[in-house]
Amino acid sequence: MSSFEQIDKYMEDHFDENIEELSKLVAIPSIAAQKTGQEECAEFVGEMLKQRGFEVEIMPTAGAPVVYGERKGKTDKTLLFYNHYDVQPAEPLELWESPPFEATRRNGKVYGRGISDDKAHITSRLLAIDALLDADGELPCNVKFVVEGEEEIGSVNLPDFVKDNAEKLAADACIWEFGGVDHRDVPLQYLGLRGICYVELSVETASIDAHSGLGGSIFPNAAWRLVWALSTLKDQDERILIDDYYENVLPPTERDMELLRKLPDPAEEYKSRYNIKEFVKGVKGGAELLAQETLEPTCTICGLTSGYQMAGSKTVLPAKASAKVDFRLVPNQTPEETLTKLRAHLDKHGFEDIQMEYMGGEAPGRTDPDDPFVQLVVKAAEEVYEDPMDLIPTSGGSGPNHAFIEYVGVPIATSGVGYPGNQVHAPNENIRLDLYMKGARHIARILKAYGET
Amino acid sequence: MSSFEQIDKYMEDHFDENIEELSKLVAIPSIAAQKTGQEECAEFVGEMLKQRGFEVEIMPTAGAPVVYGERKGKTDKTLLFYNHYDVQPAEPLELWESPPFEATRRNGKVYGRGISDDKAHITSRLLAIDALLDADGELPCNVKFVVEGEEEIGSVNLPDFVKDNAEKLAADACIWEFGGVDHRDVPLQYLGLRGICYVELSVETASIDAHSGLGGSIFPNAAWRLVWALSTLKDQDERILIDDYYENVLPPTERDMELLRKLPDPAEEYKSRYNIKEFVKGVKGGAELLAQETLEPTCTICGLTSGYQMAGSKTVLPAKASAKVDFRLVPNQTPEETLTKLRAHLDKHGFEDIQMEYMGGEAPGRTDPDDPFVQLVVKAAEEVYEDPMDLIPTSGGSGPNHAFIEYVGVPIATSGVGYPGNQVHAPNENIRLDLYMKGARHIARILKAYGET
Repeated sequence: MSSFEQIDKYMEDHFDENIEELSKLVAIPSIAAQKTGQEECAEFVGEMLKQRGFEVEIMPTAGAPVVYGERKGKTDKTLLFYNHYDVQPAEPLELWESPPFEATRRNGKVYGRGISDDKAHITSRLLAIDALLDADGELPCNVKFVVEGEEEIGSVNLPDFVKDNAEKLAADACIWEFGGVDHRDVPLQYLGLRGICYVELSVETASIDAHSGLGGSIFPNAAWRLVWALSTLKDQDERILIDDYYENVLPPTERDMELLRKLPDPAEEYKSRYNIKEFVKGVKGGAELLAQETLEPTCTICGLTSGYQMAGSKTVLPAKASAKVDFRLVPNQTPEETLTKLRAHLDKHGFEDIQMEYMGGEAPGRTDPDDPFVQLVVKAAEEVYEDPMDLIPTSGGSGPNHAFIEYVGVPIATSGVGYPGNQVHAPNENIRLDLYMKGARHIARILKAYGET
Repeated sequence: MSSFEQIDKYMEDHFDENIEELSKLVAIPSIAAQKTGQEECAEFVGEMLKQRGFEVEIMPTAGAPVVYGERKGKTDKTLLFYNHYDVQPAEPLELWESPPFEATRRNGKVYGRGISDDKAHITSRLLAIDALLDADGELPCNVKFVVEGEEEIGSVNLPDFVKDNAEKLAADACIWEFGGVDHRDVPLQYLGLRGICYVELSVETASIDAHSGLGGSIFPNAAWRLVWALSTLKDQDERILIDDYYENVLPPTERDMELLRKLPDPAEEYKSRYNIKEFVKGVKGGAELLAQETLEPTCTICGLTSGYQMAGSKTVLPAKASAKVDFRLVPNQTPEETLTKLRAHLDKHGFEDIQMEYMGGEAPGRTDPDDPFVQLVVKAAEEVYEDPMDLIPTSGGSGPNHAFIEYVGVPIATSGVGYPGNQVHAPNENIRLDLYMKGARHIARILKAYGET
């Protein structure tokens, strides 16, 4: 029996008890936005790691604690896993077909809030570790876990935590919290995340609303001030008009475009799912659409609010108005740079009255597709999945990967149990059990291969 | 005993029973926005007129019925009173110090929803009519009443009613629904109303919201479409940018400015009440401020709504956005003209995707300050109030006066019981009993003088 036959058999034999452990983890409603169950969940994750012989610390932050665990392995190489134990709120509850905090198995899936994002990623990795320990009595390399409790609220304290504990976290490579397959079941390798800078712009022109018949032509109007200010930020060709906004932007490389050309064209699926007639800037599809989607900076109005918003008419002149604005960042932009430039832009255009509140942000982070660790992870997938991994230069979304890249200096690769139907952040979040097992098998192969390099 | 001594004594002697009648009128919750109590209130107003010997018809419209009453007088001259029996909603109820639909007397005032706007205007006019009938057995001139039930929702059916019944409504002059004194107790004569054109602009760029990390740089964003469209409507110097928008605008005349120069400067009171630092367009106060306030067209954003508007951040790309926009019109603008020009403007600037819904409107209407009827009303006030009437070229607000000016051809003057503290449209709406009596005395003198001209 080959080493992997034994390892895979162990995982199959211990599958139900591992899923039982996952069910206990799902039962803890560790909702970061509502600050519930965080300490309890951190303790539970710590216990799971201790049972695998990890030295564990529950480390405080300004917010929820971080679970840190480490276990020495056969070689000096160190692999770091980043995960999070917090979950999104379960609302709207009435749309769940089974209780969100009772992991429920049906039709080859298990349902529960946070099961895919990110609890099954934690336990599938532990299943692989269990199998490796059973086979060899030790791990192929040193393994560290950083499991935070605030990913769903923007990892607000994680970058500082990573910076302050860079020595403790020292590692040679990192496996990110997520990973999985696309709609064709082809495994995906995400090589980075965009950054984000989220601000609320608000303006108050008076202490109370006025009658529009009275103030319409003499009082400043908060809604107009906001509209005028926003309209200076981006033109109808999607060009962000803030001075020097693009100066640190690295354009897509030929290697990026080569990778994007290998990916399926999402144009038709996007158009039908969202009922969109055309994409902006006249882009039609293919690599060009993918590059525009993920490799360009954005300035998105996420929300607008002012004055009367109910049915019918009310003749009111609003004293207050505000907008939520989300800037997605690409290398080498930073949230700090965006804040500075945005404030200068508003002031320069006469909008000193527009208040700017920073709601959180993260710098972008990318790993070289040709990094040997990425290649190892891609190769380790070959035996598990029927198709080779597709390499994606970066996700359009954001996360705290930049902190690990900058302060720990690790390449980061993805491996996981996700698929397009897992309803992350939505009711009836679920995992597919077949992909769960594949994820565990992939992790076992990554660890083994990494110990041997 | 002079004629007016007798008339005034009658009104004092019958004051309590007249206020009792007003209390019954207030007890009917004739809320146009909620479609309650309208028929009942129309019947009650009809009964009050019948008791004074009026021939009454409750006339249907596409909405609430209009109460029409007429009674012949000593001469051929006909004076028309325009009033309304509908009221604003009473909410927020918790801020009322006494139940809104129980007229409650305290400290020389009577409180109740709709008591000032417009029910006390109806009963104070009836008190004057009672006194004149008691003194002479007949009225000094023909009197007609038009009392509608939808003023608080924009008099949506009144212009058509007036047009269709112009012959029946034939009159030589009209007293408007409201009138009263300013903060110094100086009586005011409003000579007109601005028009209004209220629209909702909305745009839908997709069938569902998208994640801003996904769609930010490829999906059209409804909030951005709306902001861009709105920003083309008016510049930061308050200039409306719609083609030929000002072509029918009559500028203030020298007579307008002469009247405005006689009025007190509201600048300091506005600044302190609304906590405003500066007025728009750099205007400081005085006649210049008053002219800008009431004699210029406006384009006011009354409300904005799109995407995420709660606390914190949500990374969403909104599929829908809308704005409520209120254009105030001056002679000779019309709502129809505004709608046509606005649609053409949006299309010309590439905003065919912005939907435009007309929420209601009225043309502007003004009466010549030197019209003999206006002079008669002003002169009739001299004996009642301590100060002479201030003439105001037009109110900044809107109402259906244009229909009477255009279809009945009457000059319109104001006389009433209002004062700045009567909390119209707000909790604890009230009238001052001293001003109520002055209003009734003014009406008696107007009728008497008009019969004698």
